[in-house]
Amino acid sequence: MGSHLIESQQISKELLLSFFKRADKLRENQEETLKGKILTSLFYEPSTRTRLSFESAMNRLGGSVMGTENANEFSSVSKGESLIDTIRIIAGYSDVIVMRTKEEGQARKASKVSSVPIINAGDGKGQHPTQTILDMYTIYREIKHLDNLKIAMVGDLASGRTIRSLCYLLGKFEGIQITFVSPPNLRIEEDIKEYLEKHNVIFREEENLEEVLPICDIIYMTRIQQERISLEDYEKAKGRFIIDEFNIHLIRQDARVLHPLPHVEEIDLSLETENSDPRIAYFRQAENGLYARMAILEWAINGSKKNYENQS
Amino acid sequence: MGSHLIESQQISKELLLSFFKRADKLRENQEETLKGKILTSLFYEPSTRTRLSFESAMNRLGGSVMGTENANEFSSVSKGESLIDTIRIIAGYSDVIVMRTKEEGQARKASKVSSVPIINAGDGKGQHPTQTILDMYTIYREIKHLDNLKIAMVGDLASGRTIRSLCYLLGKFEGIQITFVSPPNLRIEEDIKEYLEKHNVIFREEENLEEVLPICDIIYMTRIQQERISLEDYEKAKGRFIIDEFNIHLIRQDARVLHPLPHVEEIDLSLETENSDPRIAYFRQAENGLYARMAILEWAINGSKKNYENQS
Amino acid sequence: MGSHLIESQQISKELLLSFFKRADKLRENQEETLKGKILTSLFYEPSTRTRLSFESAMNRLGGSVMGTENANEFSSVSKGESLIDTIRIIAGYSDVIVMRTKEEGQARKASKVSSVPIINAGDGKGQHPTQTILDMYTIYREIKHLDNLKIAMVGDLASGRTIRSLCYLLGKFEGIQITFVSPPNLRIEEDIKEYLEKHNVIFREEENLEEVLPICDIIYMTRIQQERISLEDYEKAKGRFIIDEFNIHLIRQDARVLHPLPHVEEIDLSLETENSDPRIAYFRQAENGLYARMAILEWAINGSKKNYENQS
Repeated sequence: MGSHLIESQQISKELLLSFFKRADKLRENQEETLKGKILTSLFYEPSTRTRLSFESAMNRLGGSVMGTENANEFSSVSKGESLIDTIRIIAGYSDVIVMRTKEEGQARKASKVSSVPIINAGDGKGQHPTQTILDMYTIYREIKHLDNLKIAMVGDLASGRTIRSLCYLLGKFEGIQITFVSPPNLRIEEDIKEYLEKHNVIFREEENLEEVLPICDIIYMTRIQQERISLEDYEKAKGRFIIDEFNIHLIRQDARVLHPLPHVEEIDLSLETENSDPRIAYFRQAENGLYARMAILEWAINGSKKNYENQS
Repeated sequence: MGSHLIESQQISKELLLSFFKRADKLRENQEETLKGKILTSLFYEPSTRTRLSFESAMNRLGGSVMGTENANEFSSVSKGESLIDTIRIIAGYSDVIVMRTKEEGQARKASKVSSVPIINAGDGKGQHPTQTILDMYTIYREIKHLDNLKIAMVGDLASGRTIRSLCYLLGKFEGIQITFVSPPNLRIEEDIKEYLEKHNVIFREEENLEEVLPICDIIYMTRIQQERISLEDYEKAKGRFIIDEFNIHLIRQDARVLHPLPHVEEIDLSLETENSDPRIAYFRQAENGLYARMAILEWAINGSKKNYENQS
Repeated sequence: MGSHLIESQQISKELLLSFFKRADKLRENQEETLKGKILTSLFYEPSTRTRLSFESAMNRLGGSVMGTENANEFSSVSKGESLIDTIRIIAGYSDVIVMRTKEEGQARKASKVSSVPIINAGDGKGQHPTQTILDMYTIYREIKHLDNLKIAMVGDLASGRTIRSLCYLLGKFEGIQITFVSPPNLRIEEDIKEYLEKHNVIFREEENLEEVLPICDIIYMTRIQQERISLEDYEKAKGRFIIDEFNIHLIRQDARVLHPLPHVEEIDLSLETENSDPRIAYFRQAENGLYARMAILEWAINGSKKNYENQS
C-alpha cells in the first residue's frame, strides 16, 4: 500500500519507464485517480516552484492539497517538537507527504515513522529524486534514448543535489559518458565518482566549457548555490561557466540544454532565443515536471500494481 | 483562449455590464463552471482579503487554488530568478494567475510571457482593475445608474491605485462629475487629470469635505497609505478627512459611502451605524467583490464567448 | 443556521456524545457532507498541526479550504484594520472560519459580527474547545467511561488553555476526581477551582508525580509553554515533571497518557515505547482529532438538526 520516494537509487529502470508512459498518457487525458486523497506539502526550506508543481499535479488528479510553505517558522519545530513527531501526526491527516528539508537524511528518517508515503522534494545537499525523474523524462522526450548518452554537468557540482540524484539514476543505463565541468572549488564529490566507477559509467572532469559543448547530447547547467557555500567559494565560481549568445552556436542542433531552474547568470540569452531555440529545453523540462509528478503521486499513493506493472 | 486583465482601460462598457449580469446570476445560483481548473495566487505583497476573495470565487466555481501569500520571501526571487521566468514556469501549472506586486507594470510584463491569463490584483501604485469592477458593480447595484454620477474621491489620491483605476473606467460613461478631496500633499496626479479632460469628465479639487458630502451620489473614501509615503507626508495627511457621527448627516439618504478597505481612522462610526445605516455600503461592496471576481475568472479562463457576448 | 464554537462550557453532554457517535461513523465511512462549502483558517498565531487537522477534516468531507497561516503579518491587521472588520469581510467569502489568536476573547468578539460560524482554535490562554472535544473523545474510546474518571493534569497549568477547557467540560460529568500536578509557580488558576467546586468536582493539588501515577485512569501531560511565561518561571518549571523509562511502570496497564502535543522533555521515552506501549495514547489522540473535527465542522456548518439530534 503506497511507496516512499527517498532517493533516485531506489528507482528501477522499469519503474522509470513506467513513469514516462504514464506521464505521456496523463498529458493527453486528465483523470481523477486521486479524488478524495490529500497531499500535505511540508517545506522547511521554501520553494514556491517545486511546491506548486506538486500541488498542481495533485489538483489535476482530483486530489486536495494542504500544507505550509514555511514549516521552520510556523510549525511546532519552533516549540521544540521533533520532526519525527510532526510526521507521525501529520501522516494521520494525509494520504501523502511531500517534504523539503534543510538537512540531508530527513526524508529517510520521516519514512521510518510515517503511515503514509513520503516523497523527498529535496533534503539539503542530499537528493531530489522527482527532479531526476523529470530530468530523465525530458531527456527521453527530447533525445529519444537514455542509453549511450553523452551528458555534460556544469556549475556547482559540490552542492547540487539534482546532480547527485541524476548521477545515481544514470548509473542504471548503458554507455553513459559524463563530463563534469565545474570550478576547482566546487567539484563533484568522491562518493559519486566511486558510484559511477562501480557502475561502469565513463566520466571525466573538464574546465573548458567550449570544448565540451560540441560533443554532448545534453548540457545540464546548474546555478552556483550561493546560499549553501562560503562567500569566498561563491566569488571564485560566479560567472565561470555561462551559456550565452557567444557560445550557443557550439551546441549541436539535436542537443539540448537542461537546467533544474531557477537560472541566474549562468544562462545569458535573450528572451527571443530562450523562447524559440529548440535547444533550450528547460521550460519544457519544468512542464514535464507536472506530468512526471502526477505519475509519481499516483504510484506513491495508489501503489505500483494498478497503474504501473501491468502497463510496462 | 482566455484573457488577461491588466488595467481598467481595457474593459469596454459592454464587457463591464456583462460582468454585472453574470455576477447577479452567480449570486443566485452557484455553478461549477471552473471545475478542474487551477488558480495560482502569486502575492509579492501580502493581502489576505483580496487573495481570499479571489480564492473563494474560484472555489465557489468548482476550481482549485494554490499559491503563495509571500512570494517575495518564499519564491526563487530570493535566489535571483526573474519574474519573467517564474511566470513562464508557473503558467505551466495553472489555468489562471492572480498576481499582486510591489512595483508598477509587473502584471503587464507577466502577461507578455504567460501561456495562461494574468489577472492584476494590484501592481504598486499602478492599477487594481478587479477592485474597480466591483466598485462599479456596487454603484450599479446601489445607485442604479452609472451615467450622470456625482462622485467624491477622498483621501490619499496620489498613491491610491483603486482611485486611478476607477477614474479610467468612469471616463467611459456620460455626465460624470468627480470631486477630488485630498490633502495638498497627496493630490490626484496630472496624468489622470489629462485622461479625464480628454474624456469629457468634469472634475474639480476641494479641501472642504463638508461642502462636498451633500451633493454627491457616491463618497469614495480611501486610507492614507502610510506604507507608500514618507512619514512627513503621512503626518500632514492623517486625520484630515474623516466621516464620523458629526458629519454623516450631511450625506443624502440615497447616497452611498464606499471604501476599498481596510478602513482606519478615516471612518469613525460606531458599530451600530456601520451595520444598520443603508448609506454605509462598503461591507456590501466587499461581498460584491466575490461575485464580480467569479464573473471575471470565468471570463478570463473560459473566454468571453460562452458566458458573455451571448448574454449581453 | 450553523453554530459558533467558542468555549467548552457551551457543549452539553448530549452534544458531546453526538459528536462521538458521528466521529465513530466518519472514521468508517467518508461522506461528502460539506461539498461546495469553504473553510477559512485565520491563524494569528501559527500552528501547523492544528490548522492541518481542521483542513484535512474539511477536505475529507468534500469541502474546500483557504486561509492564512500568518494572519498577523500578512493581513490588513498590519495596516491597522480591526479584527472585527476582517471577520465581517472574510465571513462573506466563507462558510466557516477557524481562528487562532494571541489574545483571549477574540473568538467571542468575532462571533458577534460574523455571518458564518466561528470556531475557536485557541485564543491566547483562553480556551481551545475542539482540543477538549477530542480529548474527551479519546478518553471515551480508551477508558470507555467519562463519569467516575480519575485524572491527573500535569505541567504548566497556569498557561494551559487545553487544561482550562478540559476542566470546564469535565464539570458536566459525575464522580470526577482531578489531581493537579504543577510547579508552584504555574498552578491552576482560582477561577477554575471555583468552577470545579460549584460543579462538585473533587480536586487536589500535588507536587509528587510518582504518588499520583498509580491511582489515575488518565495522565494528561502538558508542555511548559516557554513562549507564554517569563524566563525565570520557565527555568523553575522545566524538567520538574517527566514521564520516562523510570516511572512509566507506575502507570496502570489500563490507564492512558494523553498530551495535546507538541511534547518536549516532559515525555522522555524511547521511540519503541511510544509506538508499542498501549498506555501511550497521544498519537491516537491526535488522530482522533481529525474525526472529532469532522463532526464539529458538520455541526457548525450544517446545523445540529440533520446530523445530530436525530442520531443521538
